[in-house]
Amino acid sequence: MALISEHIEGDTRDRILEVAERLFRQIGYQKTTVGDIAKELRMSPANVYRFFESKKAIHQSVARSLMGEVELEAQRIVARPGPVLARFRELLTTIHRMNTERYVGDNKLHEMVEIAMQEDWEVCVAHMELITTAIGQMIAQGVASGEFEAPDLQLASMCACTAMMRFFHPQMIAQCATKPGPTIDQMIDFVIAGLSPRH
Amino acid sequence: MALISEHIEGDTRDRILEVAERLFRQIGYQKTTVGDIAKELRMSPANVYRFFESKKAIHQSVARSLMGEVELEAQRIVARPGPVLARFRELLTTIHRMNTERYVGDNKLHEMVEIAMQEDWEVCVAHMELITTAIGQMIAQGVASGEFEAPDLQLASMCACTAMMRFFHPQMIAQCATKPGPTIDQMIDFVIAGLSPRH
Repeated sequence: MALISEHIEGDTRDRILEVAERLFRQIGYQKTTVGDIAKELRMSPANVYRFFESKKAIHQSVARSLMGEVELEAQRIVARPGPVLARFRELLTTIHRMNTERYVGDNKLHEMVEIAMQEDWEVCVAHMELITTAIGQMIAQGVASGEFEAPDLQLASMCACTAMMRFFHPQMIAQCATKPGPTIDQMIDFVIAGLSPRH
Repeated sequence: MALISEHIEGDTRDRILEVAERLFRQIGYQKTTVGDIAKELRMSPANVYRFFESKKAIHQSVARSLMGEVELEAQRIVARPGPVLARFRELLTTIHRMNTERYVGDNKLHEMVEIAMQEDWEVCVAHMELITTAIGQMIAQGVASGEFEAPDLQLASMCACTAMMRFFHPQMIAQCATKPGPTIDQMIDFVIAGLSPRH
């Protein structure tokens, strides 16, 4: 019985997050109330509060889940076999594409990003660390295969990640989309040059 | 006579900009009115409007002047003789330092930056192009001296500039100041590695 009820509870939690994400996307984080989320699910706001103590807690979970998908995809590319350079390029391109899909354009999730960066920095920092770690693992594979040279792996991955800010950071993606600058492929070439063996 | 009156007019224009910059710094762009600026100068708002048609026009001129100082300093470093690597590092560090002094911290000029990026993108783009050009000239000197390798100069300078976004972009400087990441010296090393000859 405990297992079944835990299962149902988990299920309700997931449904709340799913509806919350949809509403954040459609009408924006600020305008969505816990009442709206409850109404869509045909439950009472009190029931939503049994699972999340506040709208902020819902926001955190939705943000974690959106970021988690990017992390998972990054780890999948890192774990796959094959030449490093091609996968390194795929990794950086995938992070850019997924962040663009998630936070830029018509949908209103960018409001969530701004709030996360004002109020939930820990969630963002944890995400950036996971992404930097995935990039670091990829660089380590390149060092092992002789495709890269990086005496300090952690530093190399931080620099590679920082160099890609225009293409990774939701606010920068939105701001720079129509501004002069390198294409993502050109930028990745530059990062690869910075990691290439000297001789 | 024409010369003297032009001189006085230019002088008044400069004084308006000087006071406007001080007020933008102290009380913020939004809260400063043309009336405040006129009052400080003991002139009528109508007289200010003889020189600038709107507060936005004053904003543009203050922004141009603040950005112009950075451009001038950048060009000074580019024009100076001496080994390229040291001056390249000085150039990138100076842009970072001057942008930090101007737009980050206690003073309220960052409000001006946000407005400039929402409303006056042309002013910002022109500035970024001038900074990118200065970096490109420095890279060209490095190619000539054999310190750098860059088949496409314009592309190399755009990539170097983009890689430094965390340290150049006022919003990113403010946002990243307390976040994990490379130091500016480490980042410059990475950029230099990307520009270094392959063999």
